[in-house]
Amino acid sequence: MNAARSNVQVEVNGRSYRAPGRPVVVICYDGCDPAYLADAAIRGLTPALSAMMAEGFYSSALSAMPSFTNPNNVSIVCGAPPRVHGVSGNYWFDRDTGKEVMMTDAGPLRAPTILARLAAAGVKVAAVTAKDKLRKVLAAGLAGPGLPGLAFSAERADTCTVGEHGLDAAEALGPAKVPDQYSPELSLFVLDAGLRLLGQRGSELVYLSLSDFVQHAHAPGAAASDDFIRAVDARMAAFLAAGAIVGVVADHGMTDLSLHDGSPNILYLGDLLDQRFGAGRFKVICPITDPFVRHHGALGGFVRVHVLDGSDPAPLRDFVAGLPGVHLALTRDEACARFDLPPEREGDVTVVAEKGVALGTRQGEHRLDELAGARLRSHGSLAERPVPFVLSQPLNPDYRARARAAPLYNYDIFDFALNGTETA
Amino acid sequence: MNAARSNVQVEVNGRSYRAPGRPVVVICYDGCDPAYLADAAIRGLTPALSAMMAEGFYSSALSAMPSFTNPNNVSIVCGAPPRVHGVSGNYWFDRDTGKEVMMTDAGPLRAPTILARLAAAGVKVAAVTAKDKLRKVLAAGLAGPGLPGLAFSAERADTCTVGEHGLDAAEALGPAKVPDQYSPELSLFVLDAGLRLLGQRGSELVYLSLSDFVQHAHAPGAAASDDFIRAVDARMAAFLAAGAIVGVVADHGMTDLSLHDGSPNILYLGDLLDQRFGAGRFKVICPITDPFVRHHGALGGFVRVHVLDGSDPAPLRDFVAGLPGVHLALTRDEACARFDLPPEREGDVTVVAEKGVALGTRQGEHRLDELAGARLRSHGSLAERPVPFVLSQPLNPDYRARARAAPLYNYDIFDFALNGTETA
Repeated sequence: MNAARSNVQVEVNGRSYRAPGRPVVVICYDGCDPAYLADAAIRGLTPALSAMMAEGFYSSALSAMPSFTNPNNVSIVCGAPPRVHGVSGNYWFDRDTGKEVMMTDAGPLRAPTILARLAAAGVKVAAVTAKDKLRKVLAAGLAGPGLPGLAFSAERADTCTVGEHGLDAAEALGPAKVPDQYSPELSLFVLDAGLRLLGQRGSELVYLSLSDFVQHAHAPGAAASDDFIRAVDARMAAFLAAGAIVGVVADHGMTDLSLHDGSPNILYLGDLLDQRFGAGRFKVICPITDPFVRHHGALGGFVRVHVLDGSDPAPLRDFVAGLPGVHLALTRDEACARFDLPPEREGDVTVVAEKGVALGTRQGEHRLDELAGARLRSHGSLAERPVPFVLSQPLNPDYRARARAAPLYNYDIFDFALNGTETA
Repeated sequence: MNAARSNVQVEVNGRSYRAPGRPVVVICYDGCDPAYLADAAIRGLTPALSAMMAEGFYSSALSAMPSFTNPNNVSIVCGAPPRVHGVSGNYWFDRDTGKEVMMTDAGPLRAPTILARLAAAGVKVAAVTAKDKLRKVLAAGLAGPGLPGLAFSAERADTCTVGEHGLDAAEALGPAKVPDQYSPELSLFVLDAGLRLLGQRGSELVYLSLSDFVQHAHAPGAAASDDFIRAVDARMAAFLAAGAIVGVVADHGMTDLSLHDGSPNILYLGDLLDQRFGAGRFKVICPITDPFVRHHGALGGFVRVHVLDGSDPAPLRDFVAGLPGVHLALTRDEACARFDLPPEREGDVTVVAEKGVALGTRQGEHRLDELAGARLRSHGSLAERPVPFVLSQPLNPDYRARARAAPLYNYDIFDFALNGTETA
């Protein structure tokens, strides 16, 4: 560590962050619904996490809305909700061009990240993600030509170059091979890579973003879920043994959205709108859509409806709010005010499902075959907002008071890890 | 109908209620999680309810907290949250006497009910409940010696007397027998009795409170659940055919609290407190406890902890808030402010579980055998707050605006049914 560094502070999106005095690892444990940890802790599957909770800090926190992966990962590294950084979905409808685009193709982030700012201030920063599309976003200002940090994905570790990722493929891969995109190993690769960066690179601030492949497929207590939890916990122990301060949050929880017989409980909003208002007047966008993810059929608890003919969205909102299975239907302004969303990427009507219900476009437009007979488990609604918030160190008195005074968000984790612990 | 009646208004707990111009039936569809209706409407199981939603009004609303039966039934008939009427659990710990008591043994309600006030103003009012314990509470000021209304339960219909219930057993039973307490028929008896009261008694305002026996036992889409939903819907059709305005809410939703293998995901709070602080210092009260209900083992998502030695509850709160599986741990003042609860019946620390997690006292103190191998489905937490809110009539413009401006609560239903429809 550089002793002079202890005075380094950066301002990012309205908050100040101290450079770490010792290595800090922040993990986004994708899809880690609190129900997994409750059970796992009781059964002793998580000795390292349980020790962190007992000796450091644990709280239930809230995700940003929608409770999807990309908006929350970006919120976490920006320390701010989607209103600030503009990433409010995995996928959206560009009203100006009339095209549907993936977030990764939507242009640069409009807010700086904590990672980029601390790297620019001389801190050795690295980000490792499961999926490469997310790496591209998180690398903004951090890694790439002329930039000081590292950023790479498990999915494309074998294509790393010093120019783009800050390290070459041999170093990114280490002793491992590129794991299958649809496997628990994808997440474990990310954690193992983070460990190597701490040891071999002397990384001082590491952000590790996992995949929710296991949680989409398996309920708490399933053997595959237990195995994954144990494997993650073993890596937590290794981070602690390496002397790191570890922070863990999730991007969202996970809920079973199936009926008794295992078929999904889906409200096909596009079909209902066609029946009520006539076909072709609205576009229903499922912002969970992700061509690289096959385990949820693009079904989640949050969709946006765009009025294509520019008519008043109020009748649409009132109709949708009156559908059983819908928890909230809000106009753009209402949704942005309530959930801190950026208006330019919001639909005319924002729809949040009830717990246990999936929102879809039209029958036949979702790849239910991708579920391969498994129960649909997914997220996006208010029911998946609660997430774990864990720190391996006790909070200092100021941050203890803050944690009591107001709800924590997952995107408070860098603030708490860098500024809020007794010994950071 | 009495034409002069149209000018009758009563004030109850700060709101004004008009006497009904035509019969009004309000149904508390116990445990009707919105996920049941979403699926049932799509599959065409609920023609009457679907017609009500399409031609009248449907919205997602919130229950009072805790999301248990008795606090919500009383909130509904009072048009006010537990802070006003004092019933914040099925079961509680009397700090003054050191005794645990059932709500039914805790003395009279401390707020008047809409039912009693309208009955006193000359409206023919009747209340029918599934369970007799709830009937005793809802009968306050309504039925009994010298009182004008009717109130009886399906469970004890065969014991009705004119003096206590306002009608005798023969009329209460009609052509039916007393149904099994643990059967779907208990709820259907309540609905059928309500229909008879409309026709034979000329009842003008009828409150019908069902049982959640089916929902505790069966997920949406299960055959037993489908059968029950169809049977309830047939009664809805009959109420509409009888010319009634029908309002439907639920007291709470329902969530599967089981692990993959079907065993319950329980956090035994009493055991954890004993381990951390030593045995005997705290009393954990599960206010879902109900000796007359065997299908949830007194396990739900909300418990209260009482500090027996009068010490500062803050360390207890902080410890509990740091347990995975706990969504919120609040001191009495915090809980009362947040959830509109009466302080004199609140614990020192109020604990709300995460979605999917049950809170218990100690291993061995819950009758898990009562589940008889079924998955634990229960309620009490924030995850079971969303409930349906249905009216068979469209709202008038004032109430449409109100429904848009702020969240609806289930205890707004009498206000909306009596004051808020176009034709009430």
